[in-house]
Amino acid sequence: MRYQALLTVLLAIALPAIASETAVADRSITLKNVSDAQNAWCKALIDISAINTKSGPAAAKKLAEQVIDSAYGYQLGTVAFKPTLTVNPQTFRTTRSGALAYFVGGDPAFPKDKGFALKDWTKCETTDAAILLLGNYANSMGKVKLTDKNGKVTAVDKTWGWVKDDRGQMRIVLHHSSLEYPG
Amino acid sequence: MRYQALLTVLLAIALPAIASETAVADRSITLKNVSDAQNAWCKALIDISAINTKSGPAAAKKLAEQVIDSAYGYQLGTVAFKPTLTVNPQTFRTTRSGALAYFVGGDPAFPKDKGFALKDWTKCETTDAAILLLGNYANSMGKVKLTDKNGKVTAVDKTWGWVKDDRGQMRIVLHHSSLEYPG
Amino acid sequence: MRYQALLTVLLAIALPAIASETAVADRSITLKNVSDAQNAWCKALIDISAINTKSGPAAAKKLAEQVIDSAYGYQLGTVAFKPTLTVNPQTFRTTRSGALAYFVGGDPAFPKDKGFALKDWTKCETTDAAILLLGNYANSMGKVKLTDKNGKVTAVDKTWGWVKDDRGQMRIVLHHSSLEYPG
Amino acid sequence: MRYQALLTVLLAIALPAIASETAVADRSITLKNVSDAQNAWCKALIDISAINTKSGPAAAKKLAEQVIDSAYGYQLGTVAFKPTLTVNPQTFRTTRSGALAYFVGGDPAFPKDKGFALKDWTKCETTDAAILLLGNYANSMGKVKLTDKNGKVTAVDKTWGWVKDDRGQMRIVLHHSSLEYPG
Repeated sequence: MRYQALLTVLLAIALPAIASETAVADRSITLKNVSDAQNAWCKALIDISAINTKSGPAAAKKLAEQVIDSAYGYQLGTVAFKPTLTVNPQTFRTTRSGALAYFVGGDPAFPKDKGFALKDWTKCETTDAAILLLGNYANSMGKVKLTDKNGKVTAVDKTWGWVKDDRGQMRIVLHHSSLEYPG
Repeated sequence: MRYQALLTVLLAIALPAIASETAVADRSITLKNVSDAQNAWCKALIDISAINTKSGPAAAKKLAEQVIDSAYGYQLGTVAFKPTLTVNPQTFRTTRSGALAYFVGGDPAFPKDKGFALKDWTKCETTDAAILLLGNYANSMGKVKLTDKNGKVTAVDKTWGWVKDDRGQMRIVLHHSSLEYPG
Repeated sequence: MRYQALLTVLLAIALPAIASETAVADRSITLKNVSDAQNAWCKALIDISAINTKSGPAAAKKLAEQVIDSAYGYQLGTVAFKPTLTVNPQTFRTTRSGALAYFVGGDPAFPKDKGFALKDWTKCETTDAAILLLGNYANSMGKVKLTDKNGKVTAVDKTWGWVKDDRGQMRIVLHHSSLEYPG
Repeated sequence: MRYQALLTVLLAIALPAIASETAVADRSITLKNVSDAQNAWCKALIDISAINTKSGPAAAKKLAEQVIDSAYGYQLGTVAFKPTLTVNPQTFRTTRSGALAYFVGGDPAFPKDKGFALKDWTKCETTDAAILLLGNYANSMGKVKLTDKNGKVTAVDKTWGWVKDDRGQMRIVLHHSSLEYPG
């Protein structure tokens, strides 16, 4: 099905058959929605690192809360979140507080969390292996390369799943991240 | 949300962010899928009328069966079908045989059916009031104008609902058609 | 697929395999959701008639607005609404104001609307021919029998389509209603 | 939303409002569907190990092909599959041949694959942290504990995503598995 989306786009332009006076409600997720949401996640990670360096952990925490509230779906209910570096038995972070602890640390309820977003990340790049557009729900799976201020690269295998909320906002309801298996 | 779909299309072309090596599975229904499915329904109605005139009711029935099997979703299960001219208590045609009887008549189990597709239709035009793209499911609602060989026009209010099947084929699972209320 | 839902229920009780500590997010629509939404629509129609008789059209309008805002999906975008008694070219009511005018009249922008909900309805009964549970979207199609205070019965063929919003509330995004074809 | 599904079940039994003559089409995924699909995956893994021991790798491969064709969604298009032990640059297995190579090895196109299903697994247990029922699509995320014939346990963090195909069969379209992060 490679290129199918682009073909659809080109055909849609070539053959506009739905009149402009028709009211259209579109709750589906597009490839561009997925790409934008990935880029927003990467930008947020780097922004949290930067504000931590510049203004300290309280500012970083405040930004992390804004990111979680706008990009994840905790207000819709449970989020299936397996962060890269969590340790059993606190592997999964199905609540907002568990996600916040992972990103910025400092929560005694999650003592092993050091703050993943505070690791001085300066670059975040995604490469998709597969994208599933399933309607009001979509997945991406691929590599994310993270570079820190010393140039050290960490590669993770990452799956994201989104729903589009009632206002058309993409929200992560699934996030499984893991270090590469070294072989 | 008018024009939203077109904007999405234009933005998708302007900012292609998903690499071409990414495998994409797309089960969502697009505006073009809806338009194509509407046009196919119209064409099928006219084709059945034409073959009935040219080759008789047996040929019309055979074509109607092909149309039902390719455009409706009876093989997926129940179809919610309220044809324009059915009479209580046989108003709804949730099975394939009920749909076939409506289109070509001649089924003693549905004695009031005269064969809607045999009414010498020569033209079929759709005008959409609203289209809902809900993911793997979509609706359209609007007017359908049918013209017969004598130039007589019949206007109906029509709702169609489709799912995309496993092979990507649009299938009608909902069809509510009614004569206009004269006021 | 008849009885499938009930079987699913019974099997789910007999074989509870998902542990109670699992966090579950469920955005799907059940048969009971559909039935409840139908009953709520019927009750609202009768309530608007009753308050109109008791307290006058301003109170009826206020209640109708509450009903539209809680039971329909206009705040999500376009609603595909073809009421029973609207007249061309104002057949379709894709906006909130068009729906309100239909139910309680009195809007100069919709001069032929007399207020469908003000017709002294005292009873509203639904009989479903088909229900489609398609995930976060569902349809019902069937008869609705409306009885007024003089015992006069009006039967309509009615299709409703719902989505579940972010808070789990059922919202009508499709509504096609038509008088029975007399034959 | 914990217990919500069970409550829905109990209420559905207490208040059966949809008449038995209504034709119902249900394409949604239930908790039981998820649990059954997980159990089937576990059973298949152990069965492939057992037949390999008893009858050799050719028989194991044949069974693995049957499992992939019945439990995964490769015939629907791309599957997003990140197995536990794959090595970059062959981390992701979006095609059927890549999945088969992972499970039973022996494919020169995937030289690092040793056959994950041939590791003499005797026990497979799932514990869910979160389940998302999103309509025609569902996810589970949690631990899977695998025990081999020597009693050695391997714990993996696992996400599965399913669609229900046109015949109602659950098919894995997303599978992300990773070893626990040791901390």
